[in-house]
Amino acid sequence: MLLALLQANAVVMDLDANCAAIDEAAGTAVAAGAKVLLTPELFPTGYSPRRVRAELDPAVLPELRTRLAGIARRHRIGLVYSLPRVSPQGEWHISATLLDTKGTNLLTYDKIHLFGPEERAAFGPAARPPAVVSFNGIPTSMVICYDVEFPEAVRAAAVAGAELLLVPTALAHGYDEVPQVLLRARALESQLTIAYANHSGVEEGCRFLGGSVIAGPDGSLLAAAGEEPELLYAEVDQDAAARARSEVPYLAERRPDLYRSWDS
Amino acid sequence: MLLALLQANAVVMDLDANCAAIDEAAGTAVAAGAKVLLTPELFPTGYSPRRVRAELDPAVLPELRTRLAGIARRHRIGLVYSLPRVSPQGEWHISATLLDTKGTNLLTYDKIHLFGPEERAAFGPAARPPAVVSFNGIPTSMVICYDVEFPEAVRAAAVAGAELLLVPTALAHGYDEVPQVLLRARALESQLTIAYANHSGVEEGCRFLGGSVIAGPDGSLLAAAGEEPELLYAEVDQDAAARARSEVPYLAERRPDLYRSWDS
Repeated sequence: MLLALLQANAVVMDLDANCAAIDEAAGTAVAAGAKVLLTPELFPTGYSPRRVRAELDPAVLPELRTRLAGIARRHRIGLVYSLPRVSPQGEWHISATLLDTKGTNLLTYDKIHLFGPEERAAFGPAARPPAVVSFNGIPTSMVICYDVEFPEAVRAAAVAGAELLLVPTALAHGYDEVPQVLLRARALESQLTIAYANHSGVEEGCRFLGGSVIAGPDGSLLAAAGEEPELLYAEVDQDAAARARSEVPYLAERRPDLYRSWDS
Repeated sequence: MLLALLQANAVVMDLDANCAAIDEAAGTAVAAGAKVLLTPELFPTGYSPRRVRAELDPAVLPELRTRLAGIARRHRIGLVYSLPRVSPQGEWHISATLLDTKGTNLLTYDKIHLFGPEERAAFGPAARPPAVVSFNGIPTSMVICYDVEFPEAVRAAAVAGAELLLVPTALAHGYDEVPQVLLRARALESQLTIAYANHSGVEEGCRFLGGSVIAGPDGSLLAAAGEEPELLYAEVDQDAAARARSEVPYLAERRPDLYRSWDS
């Protein structure tokens, strides 16, 4: 399955411009044969927790989701987008949504580990572990940005059966070791493919790293972006996770009963 | 604190030759100003679980430990060595011992994750999490070889307060991504210094990688060996772990109550 990853610069609170960028990327990706397009954290709104929380009327969210579903359906491509989600209790979460090629919602995930005081002022942390769905025959899960820096979050997805993890992110300039070291380690230690889609350029004063990566279940980099906007591709081998897990059975040789009994 | 790491080729079941190699390395290391010498997994016996289990008379272990303590005391250097340990219940473990400069035992650790059928035939897996002691003012812990490939094991040491993790290992040729990717990620995600000391060359038909590393709490490589025998050094900065943890508070921002509530 060919996976496409959009690394791009959003315009904070210009929903039309950001949706147009996703629309264009979806068209290019599907023409290249991609079955799914992964986009960065809070890309449709731009990454500015403070401004998004202050200026986004949650009443526009249903229409915005309909518009994004239309992009998936029109181009016949799966799509991962990330938006604020307001819970029935009124709590704002940073969420990610996986749509199939008909624009149907397959999976929603809310970010568990919030990063920094601005995110924590605007959003609440979620508590549900990443769930897994079958996407094009591949058990697929999602986490968001800072989540992936915690081995526990990716482990939970892998133990639940994930062989592909799609990760919208918003990583600042200067943190190169996150995609280059941590992401590869997450893929290798839990033996799944991980795609990590970042912003590029400056949004609301924050300079982003770019540096999006797609890592395979053996920890190798299948694709890696530079600093500039880029549409990145990698072929996700349906058998790669099972092959890696049969060679070195990390998941089977964990000792979860012990870990639970330890005070950590 | 200057740390020395011995990467070397042991002779299986030639205890005298292997102790002589440790003795010589201790002399060289202390002359260079090192406060501790880390040696590879099962180095005094050589790494051959099958032969060690079949040929080593456990009655020689106390004298062997006394001899190793003598090396530490004579050179006035801390020492980590790894030997079989037979429990009061008669179970054989792969253990590691940390001695101070007087040859006094500060810490013993038994390997939790055994690797491969040969290790599992010869030894039993332990269950106690890595403990932490103060060594030269640095909270120090140990795990062994395959343990470190599991984020859960290193997390347990870090959550217990470790800022330095000493890891005897016996890693085969072809697994370069273990020291180059996983070790750096372990150091970075739990923000502690990790030293990983491997065998070099061939022992009992197994070709070892060498490739020993010392990684800092920011994930950087402080030192890295090639394939050949080598005495590797790195300065362990007493403040590095605290500095990294104040910049990005991974340990404080974990959500252990959630992790425990998940089925992973």
